[in-house]
Formats: sequence, structure tokens, C-alpha cells
Amino acid sequence: MKAWALLGAPKQLWPNDLKKQLLAAKKNGDLIIGVDRGTYLLEEMGIKADLAEGDFDSLQKNELAAIEKNVNDIRYSLPEKDLTDAEMVIRCAFIDYHASHLSLFGATGGRLDHFLSNLFMVLKPGFNQFAESIELIDQQNSIRFYNNGQHLIEKLPTYKYFGVIPLTAVQNLKITGAKYNLTDFSGNNPVSFSSNEFLPNKDQFELSFKKGTVAVIQSRDIDRFQNIK
Amino acid sequence: MKAWALLGAPKQLWPNDLKKQLLAAKKNGDLIIGVDRGTYLLEEMGIKADLAEGDFDSLQKNELAAIEKNVNDIRYSLPEKDLTDAEMVIRCAFIDYHASHLSLFGATGGRLDHFLSNLFMVLKPGFNQFAESIELIDQQNSIRFYNNGQHLIEKLPTYKYFGVIPLTAVQNLKITGAKYNLTDFSGNNPVSFSSNEFLPNKDQFELSFKKGTVAVIQSRDIDRFQNIK
Repeated sequence: MKAWALLGAPKQLWPNDLKKQLLAAKKNGDLIIGVDRGTYLLEEMGIKADLAEGDFDSLQKNELAAIEKNVNDIRYSLPEKDLTDAEMVIRCAFIDYHASHLSLFGATGGRLDHFLSNLFMVLKPGFNQFAESIELIDQQNSIRFYNNGQHLIEKLPTYKYFGVIPLTAVQNLKITGAKYNLTDFSGNNPVSFSSNEFLPNKDQFELSFKKGTVAVIQSRDIDRFQNIK
Repeated sequence: MKAWALLGAPKQLWPNDLKKQLLAAKKNGDLIIGVDRGTYLLEEMGIKADLAEGDFDSLQKNELAAIEKNVNDIRYSLPEKDLTDAEMVIRCAFIDYHASHLSLFGATGGRLDHFLSNLFMVLKPGFNQFAESIELIDQQNSIRFYNNGQHLIEKLPTYKYFGVIPLTAVQNLKITGAKYNLTDFSGNNPVSFSSNEFLPNKDQFELSFKKGTVAVIQSRDIDRFQNIK
């Protein structure tokens, strides 16, 4: 079963077709998760969450009441907790609900210490095992994670560019079959090899490395006036 | 001399008072840098860049002509270059113009492989020496960087929260004098200790660590409807 979670980062960074994606997921019987204010944002779209998680302290009483009436499984967290909301979602989705894949929306932008917390959580013990089944998605980006090994990265429709971002120390990192290849990179610090592209008529590239965790971000431009659509 | 650079990430993530800040900087004789499309966005605000850098391939002919007429020092880069635009700006600002501090706007959001490239560039040899003089600023965030040692972090006006984010392996990291203190953290991977706060009536906290580079992000919420203002 796939799981889809909506967190509380700015709405204007949502993919344009978020509602359509979530309605299709709902229809498919997938697990829909609301995270804190994200649960109410789902309600506003007319989508009932199967599971809600958060301290809900940013909600008005009537907003929380609507959630408590509609959502069957609510996990109340303490504001001063050890796990972040996104980390609790990972535990619920993969351990309690045995999800096979988790797509997170509303997890980028806004307060960047939150975004980086969402980006780096897959490096933690207890979470790293789920890294390859997690995706962060916003209007311009899809972020996937890979642990050491050999990977074939498939081009997603509508994305033009990609970046390969070692988040940890990595050894013998290779990118082959892309516009800009990398023959053998080892390093101790995070680095972003950005603005790479798939080859024309080749909708995949090969990524391999011997140690560590790497993010692959597929991305697209917005209009030339630099406005968020 | 201080330097201020505008990159090309989405306008709607600019601080609300960006134009006012840049006009005050211009009046003060500071160095104003346009980066690629950012140069034209400065023109649109009526602010002449002292230095422009980029491949300018996203500009129309008449837009580039206006820049070439108005800006004295233009550095044309190749699209397939080794340094990113932000890295070229760092070299120009600190080495050629001997700037004492560089504030970067338009360096967050948008394509996140670009943002992470801007975030991680201070870890590279040749750039790390300038880490403590660089700030990335957007509507909700101020990102500063610190190398190993003892630091007193001053609260910036209008920001409520902060996060401490080891970007590299760190040893014996301590946060004292804050809402949530950390007594002795060592780790090999990046991690974001997010959602911390300054103590009431105390506009600073102490940060120390023995190895590595740490980002401190001061941040603020947007309105409860999660719209970007």
C-alpha cells in the first residue's frame, strides 16, 4: 500500500495537481496522512485523512473539532517531542501501516530548518532503512534518496533537470549515461552536483556509490518572470 | 565594504523589504551584485548593479542590452562551467572587491538542487574561509555559517525561532543559553536541530563545537493560512 502525507509548508509550493493526485490515491485505497495543519488543509480540499498526526496547536477549536470528528486514527504529539512530525509519519506509515512507499507534500520551503530536518531525517538510524521508499514533492522538485549500491534512475515526466546530492561521506560515486557524467567521486562533506540533464531519448541514468546516502532531485523551471505559479 | 547579491530564485520568497534594504545599501556605497537574471530583477527595481555575473541565457536581447549599457563590471560565465554562479560571486566579492560580508538574496527555494548547492558551497576548500561572512536571506529565513570554535549568536529582529544544523561531521557541539540546550553532541552526518527559540529577555545564545561547519537558521512563521505573502 502507498501512503501520501501532507505537511504544513506553504500551499503555494504545492504541485499544481496535488488535489487530483490525492483524490486518485484515495480512490485507489492508499493511506492518506494529515500532518498537523496539513490535516485541515486536506479537509479544505474535501479529502478525509485516514491518519492524522501532530500537536495541532496552530488550529482553531472548530478546525480541530472537524478533524476529530472525521479522522479515525489521530496521534497527538507533544510540542516538545524528540521526533519531528515527519519522523513520526515515517514510523506510522512504514511500521504501523506497512506502507510500501511514502510521498510527502508540504515538506519543503517555509522555515528552512524544518525543510532540512525533513531532508536529513533519512540519515538517522531507525529511518535510513526507509530512505529509498520516501519522496518529497513540491511544485518544482521531486526528491528521492538512495543508499550505497547501483541504481537506475528513471526520468519523471515533466521534469527537465536533475541534481545528485551526496548528503553524507560517499565513496566512488559514478554518474553514467547523463549529460554530465562523473567518473569517480569520493568526499567527506555534502555537495550538490546540480543542473544535470537526462540525455535526449534516454529516460534514465545510472548512479552508483560504495558508501553513504545520496539524494537525487529531479526539477523543473518556473516561468521566466520567476513568479511562483 | 559590504556586498549584496541578488540571484534568480522566485521573487515571492524575497524579504518584503528587499528593495528598501538594497536602496539603503546603494546609498551607503556598498557593492551591489546581480547574478544572471537577478541583474535584470535589480534593474526592474531601479537599482543599478555594480557587478553582474552569469551566462544570462534566460534574458531577452533587450534585457541583456540594458544590463550591458548600465553595469560597469560584467563577468560572462559559460553555461557548462565548474563554479556555480553563487561560487563565482563569492570569489568576485571577497577576492576581487575585498568585501567584508556578503548577503545573498534569491538563493533559496525554486530548484532545490540549486538551493543545496548554495547551502553546501561554504564547505568547499577555497570557499570555507569565507563561511562566517556569508548570509543567505529570504522571506522567512536568515542562514549564517560557523566554523569550529566558540560563537555568540545574536538574535535578529523579527525572527522568533532558530535551528542549529551541523552540515558536516561535528564534535562536542554545545548549545547553551537557549530554550532547548544541547550538552555534547558528536555525529558524522548532517542533522537539523530545528524549532529552538531564544530565551525571553535574552537576545543571544552560545554555540561551540570542535570540528566542522554548522549553519544557524533564524526563522519566522508566515500567516496561519500558509500563504506566501
